[in-house]
Amino acid sequence: LAERFAIVMAGGSGTRFWPASRGARPKQFLALSGSDETLLQATVRRASALVGSERVLVVTSQRHAALAREQLPSLAPSQLLLEPAGRNTAPCIAWGTAHVRRRDPEGVIVALPADAHVADEAAFGRTLERAFQAAAGGSITTLGIAPTRPETGYGYLEVGDAVADGVHRVRAFVEKPTRDRARAFLEAGTFLWNSGIFLFRTDVILREIERHLPDLAAFVARCDEAARAGDGQETALVASEYAGLPSISIDHGVMEKAGGILVVPARFGWDDLGSWAAAWSLAHRDEHDNASNTELLAIDAQGCLARSTSGKLIVLLGMQDMVIVDTDDALLVMPRERAQDVSKVVSALKASGKEV
Amino acid sequence: LAERFAIVMAGGSGTRFWPASRGARPKQFLALSGSDETLLQATVRRASALVGSERVLVVTSQRHAALAREQLPSLAPSQLLLEPAGRNTAPCIAWGTAHVRRRDPEGVIVALPADAHVADEAAFGRTLERAFQAAAGGSITTLGIAPTRPETGYGYLEVGDAVADGVHRVRAFVEKPTRDRARAFLEAGTFLWNSGIFLFRTDVILREIERHLPDLAAFVARCDEAARAGDGQETALVASEYAGLPSISIDHGVMEKAGGILVVPARFGWDDLGSWAAAWSLAHRDEHDNASNTELLAIDAQGCLARSTSGKLIVLLGMQDMVIVDTDDALLVMPRERAQDVSKVVSALKASGKEV
Repeated sequence: LAERFAIVMAGGSGTRFWPASRGARPKQFLALSGSDETLLQATVRRASALVGSERVLVVTSQRHAALAREQLPSLAPSQLLLEPAGRNTAPCIAWGTAHVRRRDPEGVIVALPADAHVADEAAFGRTLERAFQAAAGGSITTLGIAPTRPETGYGYLEVGDAVADGVHRVRAFVEKPTRDRARAFLEAGTFLWNSGIFLFRTDVILREIERHLPDLAAFVARCDEAARAGDGQETALVASEYAGLPSISIDHGVMEKAGGILVVPARFGWDDLGSWAAAWSLAHRDEHDNASNTELLAIDAQGCLARSTSGKLIVLLGMQDMVIVDTDDALLVMPRERAQDVSKVVSALKASGKEV
Repeated sequence: LAERFAIVMAGGSGTRFWPASRGARPKQFLALSGSDETLLQATVRRASALVGSERVLVVTSQRHAALAREQLPSLAPSQLLLEPAGRNTAPCIAWGTAHVRRRDPEGVIVALPADAHVADEAAFGRTLERAFQAAAGGSITTLGIAPTRPETGYGYLEVGDAVADGVHRVRAFVEKPTRDRARAFLEAGTFLWNSGIFLFRTDVILREIERHLPDLAAFVARCDEAARAGDGQETALVASEYAGLPSISIDHGVMEKAGGILVVPARFGWDDLGSWAAAWSLAHRDEHDNASNTELLAIDAQGCLARSTSGKLIVLLGMQDMVIVDTDDALLVMPRERAQDVSKVVSALKASGKEV
């Protein structure tokens, strides 16, 4: 029986959680889902439960190597693949798959983003079991999340015929829709959110990469060659070549072009955690709907999220639905409904020459 | 000609500016009036302009001696009188006057709180000149501020007949009024705010203290005796006796009982700076009416006050009329209109056993 592996994609550098998420500490390294675990730690824990902790690979940026080691102390050095530069998910998955192939040429892999939240872990396990079985049969298999709102921030999958119990063909990958289209998708009931979680056999994904991204396949071959040549050779190759790889997502680069993709519809309380408003909605909240990771005194204050990296006392007096995020060198205050506009803040800071 | 002196009363320990004002750093030690000067520094500078810097005495708490020396480096040690405990303004003025009398038994003194703001310093100087002349004639003289709103937070003076150009008798001292009475006072035009600034001849005030607060007069006599007895004797006496003095204001203890008090009506942009809302109104504000003592990025934000003791970047996104005060160990966020309720915050913190 082929072994199962996980590639945890932890190379993101988003700033939607500024000022807590920064260049030096992106979202996946933060505890944003209402527990003390960071999103990365939770993702690795869930992946370990699926495939065994020694078969989890984490791909992240060289810049965050120390942070990743600190948060994942039980990870062996060989389980951490460090990208000299972020090149989106296709190079990340290709490189990770090369490492899996050296251990098991028939390995079945789940590739999953490190920065999403899963509320129902038992359901997650059952869904993944089904998806692993589908992928083991030779089909690239993705998880499609049953939408709960007309979300315009995600890509969608259009669901086709069932091929087995709870497994369907993907009819089409759909770009982020307009609000009207998103409403139509929700009503139609045949569209699912693209979770970015993919499962595939090692040989299958590498064959598709060979076909659709030949430059990337050639890089994988050189990596294997360098690894055979001796210690440090692959590291040197990656250092010199990785930043020159095409920056492309596995969705655009492979999934939308390959045929025969399957989807397992999923309902396990998945959340992409796209903003501070989402973090509030997932956080443990008190009887006044306030959430805090520090000491909080709320007087006539409801529905607020208050965070501080220093653990200082935060006092909220007379307000509703505000977000307060305090760090050593920056403090953000905004209504929760403006959470999507944090990108404006980051843009404005960058435009004024600040490091964010 | 008798010399002029100033007693700057800097013993306050208010918490209306929490979390910037704390037990360890009360309001008078903060820069709250739109400049880099603290209120104490500004008061001492104004007093020095009136009487000469070597004739300014500052009475403050022993606890804040280091802070006072740091903020007033040009003050001689003998100009700083340190109270072992706050006993309101009557003991403070009596003790300060004892020190003045040793230098000039006929000295004329202005006693003024260290934590008020004066917008028009030239007018302040002219008004004080008039008041010094009235006081030199033997009358205790106070400054009454022409009210600009039906303020319920101040005591009032009812103005009587004129005795000279711009100098009137005080008909009555009036406690903080209800809103309705405050409105009536404003309409009547014969009521002024009690500024807490008093001028008097040394001999006159000590005679009135002798009459109305004999225990305090006896303490003053023992202080003089101890001072004559040698170095350190007065300090020892104060250490053992000061905390046992009656805690009473000069208004209640002397002014309301003494006859013949005069008042000089004043219009020099006086502000008691009673809240963060007042600090905002005095602060230098940008074109969106935002005020800050740190780096501020305001996006769709107007009318806000944003302060940080650390100089961190504060970002305000999508809000109006908010107050944000950040310190090393506490952060307060509230609408400006709730500024009067900071006392509730302090009470709640004290009730939960916190040092504030």
